[in-house]
Amino acid sequence: MPSVSENQATLEEDIMKNSNWKSIVWYPLCVLSLVVLTPLVGYAQESGVSQEMFTVNNTWMLVATFLVFIMHLGFACLESGLTQSKNTANILFKNTTIVAIGLVTYAFVGFNLMYPGDFSIGQFFGFAGFGLDPGVDGNTIAYADGAYTYWTDFIFQAMFAATGATIVSGAVAERIKLSSFLVFTTIFVALVYTIAGSWKWGGGWLDQMGFYDFAGSTLVHSVGGWGALAGVIVLGPRLGKYVDGQIRGIAGHSMPLAAIGVFLLWLGWFGFNGGSVLSADAELVSLVFVTTCLAASTGILGAMLTSWFLQNKPDLSMVLNGMLAGLVGITAGADTVSVNSAMLIGLIAGAIVVGSVLLIDRAKLDDPVGAVSVHLVCGIWGTLAVGIFSTNADHSFVTQLIGVLAYGAFVFPAALIIFYGLKATLGLRVSAEEEREGLDVSEHGMQAYGGA
Amino acid sequence: MPSVSENQATLEEDIMKNSNWKSIVWYPLCVLSLVVLTPLVGYAQESGVSQEMFTVNNTWMLVATFLVFIMHLGFACLESGLTQSKNTANILFKNTTIVAIGLVTYAFVGFNLMYPGDFSIGQFFGFAGFGLDPGVDGNTIAYADGAYTYWTDFIFQAMFAATGATIVSGAVAERIKLSSFLVFTTIFVALVYTIAGSWKWGGGWLDQMGFYDFAGSTLVHSVGGWGALAGVIVLGPRLGKYVDGQIRGIAGHSMPLAAIGVFLLWLGWFGFNGGSVLSADAELVSLVFVTTCLAASTGILGAMLTSWFLQNKPDLSMVLNGMLAGLVGITAGADTVSVNSAMLIGLIAGAIVVGSVLLIDRAKLDDPVGAVSVHLVCGIWGTLAVGIFSTNADHSFVTQLIGVLAYGAFVFPAALIIFYGLKATLGLRVSAEEEREGLDVSEHGMQAYGGA
Amino acid sequence: MPSVSENQATLEEDIMKNSNWKSIVWYPLCVLSLVVLTPLVGYAQESGVSQEMFTVNNTWMLVATFLVFIMHLGFACLESGLTQSKNTANILFKNTTIVAIGLVTYAFVGFNLMYPGDFSIGQFFGFAGFGLDPGVDGNTIAYADGAYTYWTDFIFQAMFAATGATIVSGAVAERIKLSSFLVFTTIFVALVYTIAGSWKWGGGWLDQMGFYDFAGSTLVHSVGGWGALAGVIVLGPRLGKYVDGQIRGIAGHSMPLAAIGVFLLWLGWFGFNGGSVLSADAELVSLVFVTTCLAASTGILGAMLTSWFLQNKPDLSMVLNGMLAGLVGITAGADTVSVNSAMLIGLIAGAIVVGSVLLIDRAKLDDPVGAVSVHLVCGIWGTLAVGIFSTNADHSFVTQLIGVLAYGAFVFPAALIIFYGLKATLGLRVSAEEEREGLDVSEHGMQAYGGA
Repeated sequence: MPSVSENQATLEEDIMKNSNWKSIVWYPLCVLSLVVLTPLVGYAQESGVSQEMFTVNNTWMLVATFLVFIMHLGFACLESGLTQSKNTANILFKNTTIVAIGLVTYAFVGFNLMYPGDFSIGQFFGFAGFGLDPGVDGNTIAYADGAYTYWTDFIFQAMFAATGATIVSGAVAERIKLSSFLVFTTIFVALVYTIAGSWKWGGGWLDQMGFYDFAGSTLVHSVGGWGALAGVIVLGPRLGKYVDGQIRGIAGHSMPLAAIGVFLLWLGWFGFNGGSVLSADAELVSLVFVTTCLAASTGILGAMLTSWFLQNKPDLSMVLNGMLAGLVGITAGADTVSVNSAMLIGLIAGAIVVGSVLLIDRAKLDDPVGAVSVHLVCGIWGTLAVGIFSTNADHSFVTQLIGVLAYGAFVFPAALIIFYGLKATLGLRVSAEEEREGLDVSEHGMQAYGGA
Repeated sequence: MPSVSENQATLEEDIMKNSNWKSIVWYPLCVLSLVVLTPLVGYAQESGVSQEMFTVNNTWMLVATFLVFIMHLGFACLESGLTQSKNTANILFKNTTIVAIGLVTYAFVGFNLMYPGDFSIGQFFGFAGFGLDPGVDGNTIAYADGAYTYWTDFIFQAMFAATGATIVSGAVAERIKLSSFLVFTTIFVALVYTIAGSWKWGGGWLDQMGFYDFAGSTLVHSVGGWGALAGVIVLGPRLGKYVDGQIRGIAGHSMPLAAIGVFLLWLGWFGFNGGSVLSADAELVSLVFVTTCLAASTGILGAMLTSWFLQNKPDLSMVLNGMLAGLVGITAGADTVSVNSAMLIGLIAGAIVVGSVLLIDRAKLDDPVGAVSVHLVCGIWGTLAVGIFSTNADHSFVTQLIGVLAYGAFVFPAALIIFYGLKATLGLRVSAEEEREGLDVSEHGMQAYGGA
Repeated sequence: MPSVSENQATLEEDIMKNSNWKSIVWYPLCVLSLVVLTPLVGYAQESGVSQEMFTVNNTWMLVATFLVFIMHLGFACLESGLTQSKNTANILFKNTTIVAIGLVTYAFVGFNLMYPGDFSIGQFFGFAGFGLDPGVDGNTIAYADGAYTYWTDFIFQAMFAATGATIVSGAVAERIKLSSFLVFTTIFVALVYTIAGSWKWGGGWLDQMGFYDFAGSTLVHSVGGWGALAGVIVLGPRLGKYVDGQIRGIAGHSMPLAAIGVFLLWLGWFGFNGGSVLSADAELVSLVFVTTCLAASTGILGAMLTSWFLQNKPDLSMVLNGMLAGLVGITAGADTVSVNSAMLIGLIAGAIVVGSVLLIDRAKLDDPVGAVSVHLVCGIWGTLAVGIFSTNADHSFVTQLIGVLAYGAFVFPAALIIFYGLKATLGLRVSAEEEREGLDVSEHGMQAYGGA
């Protein structure tokens, strides 16, 4: 029998020897395997994700992107529906240009402020430079472990960013000067939202502390809500809203428009929350759909019951705001609470928003669309709710509270400074005459319902 | 030369022996294969579906879910557009709360009534218990052969369920008491729709008999339509609709709203029918898109021609209802008829709906939006059309007819009982004064177009 | 040691010999590999695309299809919003029937004219026969290299086709006879759009010359725009538009409707451009999302600045048209220009559209919605921009110019002939009395806002 050394010396023979039955099976099988595997070679990324999974992940993130885009139309409809028809063109103008300003500033500076890679001032501030650059790997499977491309990352986040400023728009409607609002929006969306966002989603200090905000109850909604509150305070109420100590309702001009708006917002939330999974992961995205929809539903029911009880009538505006309250409330923890908890979070949010709208009005803070109640108050509720209901033991109420306070401590003063700065320079509010006439005519020289 | 026994005794040498050229090629190749295969190991499920296919299937089902969600906005717009502005807030309120009631009851009892697993009373009734529980496998590839997760299954079916009640809403508009309607909806969507649905989609007696209803011409549309017919009968016509034996048209207040509604319904139908494939199967979903869109198109054309002929004018409401008629008509067989048959089914549905709307009005059944004609009559037509046009020889006209009759025999009396029960207790109809004033003011204390 | 011949004679022993440790590892491994590979065998298509990739590609194309469908609702809203309420039902009627006519004619002749396979008259005209027939491979991975099925191909392209005719609708609104418009639409969408389209997308002479039009700045938008220009010329202006040499604005009746329309058009463009990648390719689709959204954004900003400068007010209609201008402008090169170029293309398009609307009005061409400026002028700009900004050296300005001129030279005269032919036969314009009364009453016997 052959020794090892002999064996090594008999290479050629061994080749021949293998021309036996096994080879007859093995060779074709292996060749077949390789043929089959050839298109799959791209699979073997270090991330362990196949090209197919990369493509379905990325496709879902793009679907989520266009869903978040729809929220801009939702806000435009909701805000114009809940306000007077003499200011409708103005509101539509603002909501159209906000998207443009949001996306363009995010391309120039926002994306690189929010996701700076490295922080240069503690874990508080970083900037990766101007403009967009996917680099070599940006649009390959390597960019984000096969979850999405650089372009997808940018456009999904850019759509989010623009919603932050839109939230402010409703609160300051019917009295703010267009040019000043556009300047505010540009600064707020380019600098305030993005730097604040970097603390958590950019990997900054709150992220390292364990603060959790899945899709932005705080990072988007409370941030927008703090801006809205600052605007309401600096601008003061609309003429005729608080007269002789009395609160006078200024009814919106079109409830169908408002209802279309909130339904489109729920629709957008499928992408807002569903896309925040940051992949097409079947279990997580479907769980998020369920928690999101059930919280919206119980938000509706919570607001209906509360409003029926407190106001003695089932109020449509309250029910619509209840839906949004449920959605904002579940946003921070949509992937990390149980389905039953989601229903409870939504129900409470629906009750909260009714109380908040009534109290804020009594405090003579004039917020025409209830943006502060929906986005700030329910955003805070949702963020804290993670500390109460999360199934993940790492999430703590105290950390959630620190996050809530930190965002308030930064965004609210920042928004106040911008608004006061504009007030002192460009002027922030239209004249009383212009306000009475309506901003459509005074700012745009047109009427929203001008035709025959 | 070595004998077998010798060979078996020379394991160690054999290892060494294989350090020949072949090993040099084979080992790396096989190691490479394994590296390549590592991320694919999840593939080898007993279902034979890969993790990638599972993810794309589930993603499509979630897309279908948000499309079906859009139908709720579609119904809200269509119904409010086709009715008077003094009842608009009421209609929007109903359509908003229906979604909430539909989803929440489906979570508590509906899903487990419709898909009971085992039936406890013949093949007619089963209940798998309260609440949602994915179990161990619910969100893995194993749950539905890699087609979707438990959460996706629930939320897709829950969105469907809520549409059933919405269909009723339009038929009873402008005169039903809000509280009674909400109670009706809760019972109808939680118990009637779901138990009826279990007979086919839950695997009950009609399923075992070979009855076919792909996406719900009967299970959703006729069921809603029977409820609508019952409501119309029990409530009676709106004041001023039939006076001195004359039929007086009560025009809708906004055709743009109605048109937005039907286009959104078509949009939703991409998910309603496309999602009913219950996977992202390329051939089936794309076929369903084609049959659905062509039936909607010929429904439009059929209604246009019929209305032009019968009414001497091209009626916009009829054309919009024709689109819906085509969609309802194709729903039962969208995956099982040829493209040409789909066009014929839609064309006939479009003609049927015009005739039906005119006849039902002559019968002094006051259905403000034509819900009975669109959903019940065309739902029956579509279900029977499967028996005529299906390319699958297993589908028979007689079985389809039995299914149609069975659903009528259960749902219509059930809806009548609920409506009469409410009439005898809470009261079903608002007072004549409230009806004249409009439900917006009397029920909600507001106006839909209340602002300046 | 064994000789080769001996070895070949010892097959049986060799089998036994391999029952050693290596076999113990190798056999299970290979069996496992095969088990793992079994579901992947479908992968090894000649196209090299797996069943999974085929499914995600096809799913994305179907998502793109329903997004393009949304554009029909977008056009319906935009056109009715920018015109007078007395013609709203008429516009909604037209936009509803156009979809039906577009899809049905595309099924009967359009698809086979646009994608004839072989051309029978030079590279200018070909026809693959009537009706749809997927053939044996049509719904398998083999049809389009695993990118989509035959049914998906048809329905995606059919949705595109219908948009071409819709563009004309807005330009001829408020004065064209319904029946004549329907005949025009049928001929235009069935024959003109499709034959012209075959020159590039069907592989005809312009394709072979190297002309590039990614998603249809020319093939869809300019084609529609040429039809619109022809209609505007043959019909003449609306009564009261140009009086005593003065231009009198005829305001649209609902800016919310117009704004909903343009936002839905942007939404549709995610599918219009994103779907034109013709697969779910992660890098390309995400790049196209970014270029499309940024061009829409800079289109808004360009129009805002230009309008503020030229008209001394920030005009909402201009901003809305600026968004569309940016979208039309980027459509030809969305996959082949840099992100910065996209922003420049959009910015210029936004400026162009404002100037064009003002100039066309001064030329006394009455285009109620600005369709010629948005679709024709910006379509030309976008097509030429490919020759300027493309990162692909194969794209030349001269070839792009030839394409632009060729489409004008065919479509404009063709549309003129159809319109003049209709004028000479059925009559093209309603009577002055009917126009004053509004087409809703005169053509449809109803009012769009007829209810109480």
